[in-house]
Amino acid sequence: MQDDRVKIGVVAPGSAIAADVADRVRAFAMDRFSDRLVEIYFHPQCFLASGHFAGDDSDRARAFLDIANDETFDALWFARGGYGACRIAEQVIPKLSDAARRKAYLGYSDAGSLLAALYKAGLTGLAHGPMAIDITRKGGEAAVARALAHLIDRDSEALEPNVSADSPTAAFNMATLSQILGTALEPDLTGHVLMLEEVSEHMYRIDRMLFHITGNPGIRRAAGIRLGRCSDIPANEPDFGQSEEEVMRHWCGVSGIPYLGRADIGHDIDNKVVPFGPTSSA
Amino acid sequence: MQDDRVKIGVVAPGSAIAADVADRVRAFAMDRFSDRLVEIYFHPQCFLASGHFAGDDSDRARAFLDIANDETFDALWFARGGYGACRIAEQVIPKLSDAARRKAYLGYSDAGSLLAALYKAGLTGLAHGPMAIDITRKGGEAAVARALAHLIDRDSEALEPNVSADSPTAAFNMATLSQILGTALEPDLTGHVLMLEEVSEHMYRIDRMLFHITGNPGIRRAAGIRLGRCSDIPANEPDFGQSEEEVMRHWCGVSGIPYLGRADIGHDIDNKVVPFGPTSSA
Repeated sequence: MQDDRVKIGVVAPGSAIAADVADRVRAFAMDRFSDRLVEIYFHPQCFLASGHFAGDDSDRARAFLDIANDETFDALWFARGGYGACRIAEQVIPKLSDAARRKAYLGYSDAGSLLAALYKAGLTGLAHGPMAIDITRKGGEAAVARALAHLIDRDSEALEPNVSADSPTAAFNMATLSQILGTALEPDLTGHVLMLEEVSEHMYRIDRMLFHITGNPGIRRAAGIRLGRCSDIPANEPDFGQSEEEVMRHWCGVSGIPYLGRADIGHDIDNKVVPFGPTSSA
Repeated sequence: MQDDRVKIGVVAPGSAIAADVADRVRAFAMDRFSDRLVEIYFHPQCFLASGHFAGDDSDRARAFLDIANDETFDALWFARGGYGACRIAEQVIPKLSDAARRKAYLGYSDAGSLLAALYKAGLTGLAHGPMAIDITRKGGEAAVARALAHLIDRDSEALEPNVSADSPTAAFNMATLSQILGTALEPDLTGHVLMLEEVSEHMYRIDRMLFHITGNPGIRRAAGIRLGRCSDIPANEPDFGQSEEEVMRHWCGVSGIPYLGRADIGHDIDNKVVPFGPTSSA
């Protein structure tokens, strides 16, 4: 079914993007992958506005299914995070077709809610990694190039360097994972190397989220945790007195989950791709 | 065992208070309850500093047990919230004595982590309500007077007006409850009227927390939810487009938990007292 042509559909299950983000991504892809037949289709839903969201819950669920269930698309790429994917996850899961199960999915941050639900539903083409919005970061072309290298070629250079065939993996933003634990979206992460990153959260909140995450019986069945980057941490008042790695070591110690070291993921242009589930050796 | 004398011990399981908070509370209590033999003892731990916390985890756990397990104290009053109670809860619960079970406890916000754990451990004298730090609010004497009326006299005037003998009740800060769900601190709230309040959280976070809270199978066994005040909500970018009550109605609808209306609780001087568990009719 797959020929040389690769067709990527972009949807925004949380917040909207501006039209120029789509223009920049398409122009960059045409330039970078000029020798390939790559089509990047931004669903019009990406540019809708309904209060906080890129269209209301129905708009966003429908757009997600438009791409996921269309067998002409090889991949569904998340436009951006923001917030809102958790609101549509339970609606879209029962409506996924076989075409949806033969597709690659890539996103992070708020998109983790949907990746989790899709993983729980048994999909195998899921990965945590850069999104279209990353083109707006300084040097963001590197992140977009990595995302496309994964979506177009499954380029192993795009992978987080600790991803291995030895253990299944998963990666999440801490807040996103924390807020799906105990809900219908929580996936089984038994035996997984779990990579966690965060952005723009106070140290006391990082500490509290890690209490919550590592205190969860399901998470305690993980093979271990790797700590991604925690960036743009607002000043704690008073100074928290511990770094994010000290806090992670503390909660891994309390919970008995092995702490495995750092992970090369975060809300930045160096964010690497982490597949959900087992990775076959190259 | 109880005579006319009432002895209240104050501890700070999260963040520290300044010495003048203790002075102001004691002076106010002496003036307001001049006809009663009331002693308010601020454990020296309240004024410790260890990074973010009022002393390290051991200091705070020991101080909590000093008051809880001392039969000469009739009540343990939380000095303030901030953050940190969840870090000591699992340490103190196995060390509670019989004296700890014959005591009143009062606090809210971060203190909810410990109230939850104590409630799960079967204690019956627990309530959500004003703390010593509330003296620093404009007009905060009203909140402190209400707290003392509850702790000294179990004054029913201090109670949240929807508290009734018909249903057990519980009250929490949304973030505090969200972050203990699925951990060893999560209490059984089956059949309870659950009152929730929030402060200083963006609307998208309130929405996400209510997704998480109402998506929890334990919370879905509650008799219903009442919405307390959500104050100092930072501006959402873009405007969220829904009020906190619309969001609460949405998630109650999705989850099938009855929405019961508003509750007279919040991070303010009008914060009323909500007992954990059944309330005997007056």
